[in-house]
Amino acid sequence: MTDTKQQMKLGAFLFNFGHHYAAWRYPGTRAERLIDMDFYRQVARTAERGRMDMLFLADSSSVPHIQDTATDVSFLYPESTSVLGALSSITEHIGLAATVSTTFNEPYNLARRFATLDHLSGGRTAWNVVTGTKEAEARNFNRDTMLEHGLRYARAQEFLDVVSSLWDSWEDEAVLFDKEAGVFADTKRIHPIHHKGASFSVEGPLNIPRSPQGRPVIIQAGTSESGQHLAARTAEVVFTACEDKAKAVAFYKQLKALLPQYGRDAGQLKIMPGLLTFIGRTEEEARQKQAEFNALVPPEIAVSYLSKLLNLDVSGYPLDEPLPELSMEGNTSRAHLIMEMSRQKNMTIRELGLHFAIARGHLVLCGTAEQIADQMEDWFASGACDGFNVMPPYLPGGLEEFVDQVIPVLQNRGLFRTEYTGRTLREHLGLDRPASRFTALAQT
Amino acid sequence: MTDTKQQMKLGAFLFNFGHHYAAWRYPGTRAERLIDMDFYRQVARTAERGRMDMLFLADSSSVPHIQDTATDVSFLYPESTSVLGALSSITEHIGLAATVSTTFNEPYNLARRFATLDHLSGGRTAWNVVTGTKEAEARNFNRDTMLEHGLRYARAQEFLDVVSSLWDSWEDEAVLFDKEAGVFADTKRIHPIHHKGASFSVEGPLNIPRSPQGRPVIIQAGTSESGQHLAARTAEVVFTACEDKAKAVAFYKQLKALLPQYGRDAGQLKIMPGLLTFIGRTEEEARQKQAEFNALVPPEIAVSYLSKLLNLDVSGYPLDEPLPELSMEGNTSRAHLIMEMSRQKNMTIRELGLHFAIARGHLVLCGTAEQIADQMEDWFASGACDGFNVMPPYLPGGLEEFVDQVIPVLQNRGLFRTEYTGRTLREHLGLDRPASRFTALAQT
Repeated sequence: MTDTKQQMKLGAFLFNFGHHYAAWRYPGTRAERLIDMDFYRQVARTAERGRMDMLFLADSSSVPHIQDTATDVSFLYPESTSVLGALSSITEHIGLAATVSTTFNEPYNLARRFATLDHLSGGRTAWNVVTGTKEAEARNFNRDTMLEHGLRYARAQEFLDVVSSLWDSWEDEAVLFDKEAGVFADTKRIHPIHHKGASFSVEGPLNIPRSPQGRPVIIQAGTSESGQHLAARTAEVVFTACEDKAKAVAFYKQLKALLPQYGRDAGQLKIMPGLLTFIGRTEEEARQKQAEFNALVPPEIAVSYLSKLLNLDVSGYPLDEPLPELSMEGNTSRAHLIMEMSRQKNMTIRELGLHFAIARGHLVLCGTAEQIADQMEDWFASGACDGFNVMPPYLPGGLEEFVDQVIPVLQNRGLFRTEYTGRTLREHLGLDRPASRFTALAQT
Repeated sequence: MTDTKQQMKLGAFLFNFGHHYAAWRYPGTRAERLIDMDFYRQVARTAERGRMDMLFLADSSSVPHIQDTATDVSFLYPESTSVLGALSSITEHIGLAATVSTTFNEPYNLARRFATLDHLSGGRTAWNVVTGTKEAEARNFNRDTMLEHGLRYARAQEFLDVVSSLWDSWEDEAVLFDKEAGVFADTKRIHPIHHKGASFSVEGPLNIPRSPQGRPVIIQAGTSESGQHLAARTAEVVFTACEDKAKAVAFYKQLKALLPQYGRDAGQLKIMPGLLTFIGRTEEEARQKQAEFNALVPPEIAVSYLSKLLNLDVSGYPLDEPLPELSMEGNTSRAHLIMEMSRQKNMTIRELGLHFAIARGHLVLCGTAEQIADQMEDWFASGACDGFNVMPPYLPGGLEEFVDQVIPVLQNRGLFRTEYTGRTLREHLGLDRPASRFTALAQT
């Protein structure tokens, strides 16, 4: 993997009709059917043509407010592992990442699902581990309120431990498949895991052999302190939201510095901020495109969306004045980010609403393909990231523009691969294939 | 769908390397890789070429005894909804059924998964609802022992109620998608379900619109009394194991007679027994093939397998004498079936072990394609079934033989379709598309 050391990693983050809040209204957005295999087929082929590292699928499990579905499609999530399955058989090279919450699932089910998908895809899967934050989600899973933050993270950590033990429960050499002698497996290389913890009791082993990657790649997005420690201990890709290069550099240094205390090498965790692009033949054309999108977000909708991101109703405050001081105790890191931006940049409620409707606080680059590549190169060279998770403002067109216009510039500069050289997602990302912990134990 | 009224329904039941216990050792079985997309691709194309109604995927979540994996692959189950996802994008017509247990899952997760797969496949999915019976499964999901039979069925019934309410929670006309006016959905047609029951509290609605079939097809296999009532209330396909035509006719009559008390029409539930075939150009050739398979099962392995099916260790009894009288209290319906057969046919332990190693108590037909078609026609015409769930003894060869040799005979007799006339699995099976219960409520 040495040849890819100085090259960036690129994911294609798929979200409904695109990431801009009003993507579904954009005339260029394809929307004949809501959850459509032809759509996914087209998007997957485009990303694979661009030699991108992975397709990234978000997920969530509730409609927080039915009333909002009148104007807002951000609640809409096809179940991500199902989509991953459908993509696995129509792609050949690209990695496939699905988001699943540890709060309302069982580790044995999830370990089996990802191991199966890793087998079917020939070693191209990743699991984006989330813990969920929405109260409405809790109410779909036998609870009145969401688990408190600390409990969610403790459960997530235990969940991850169980899942990776299960992935390891068959050593790589366990299957013998000796038809002649009638011996299928070497039973000494298949291990119960005997897990008994605060949230789970799981006997094991998994009932399928170890998958091509050994363990599917682990992705996380948490930026809170417990999120960073969970990531330093277990994540191999961290997906972040950051608009400011200096802050991104500081976060990159801070997180990579945590790795040694968990016995890990800094190269074994890739940090990939989200990136939303408006691409034009001229800078002016790109700005016009962005303005067209923004015109599709009426001010009251922008404010209602801002209220959702803030977990606070701000619709009663004057639209063209800054946010008042509000109690942010116990709120999400995104809510804190919004409040901080409001203060630092002295933005009005209208401006904030529109700003976050574009990309929810992710980096937005607007310009020609060359200009966008310049900025990406600058972040990459400055140690702000190992690559980007590309968030097309609309789909499939926005991804096609990125692949056909920006990626060739990056390739010409030697910043991105021109052909797939690896077979598995781990190989694309330059991540080691872990040995089974049971094999490791046997060797010590 | 009137043209299919007198035609049988045919599923292709995929199980590892085939259904014969020793399929993995058969020289004609493809086994280079264990969980292999090329294998599924080949099998799916074969079944679709045969115009079969559906591919049927079993599932289970444990390795009951690690020691057994040395000689027995029956524990091995790729997670079925993942395989269904992968098949959805490489097939066009055939239905796709996956098995998932209600005992160790959450209804909101499962409702989303099947609705997503129904969207992606254009309305071709079915859920085979099982409750699980294995103690080893319980130990992978935070329990020491399995839930008692009655509790499992009560939970299954509640689970099914919640899932179908969630599938109905978006009425068919809820999505407006008016880009111009910026109106996505008609919020009056999206409904919370407010479910609070003994096992689940689920607020709803689902966060994806109603799927092409309205509700994926419901399959069940329970033949116990509570199983039959659950089926009469909710199942649209019942998968059975029966070797005896007279018994099959009696079961068919009994189950269909239960439907009216649940307000259902007898045509809205299809009964499909499992069928395992050994096909030869002559009867002699077919018998030789069956003997070749059986020779791959050493007697001690057959007895060990029999012990598993009986949930009782019978390895201490003489191999060539009948089973002694054993306490069968609380045992499975399959265990009772084995004990009954042992008594009625005066079979020895060796004979019983071998008999059940072939097809676990399902109908076995051995002969030329014409002879097999004769028997199938006889069962169908006698009111023993609405079709069959075909269980190839080995894969993919056994399915290819069935599709290329038996199906053409059935087609020539007008007993099976020569082209797909429907688009969804419901249409293949002649099942009505249910209206959302909320739409029905609004109209009364």
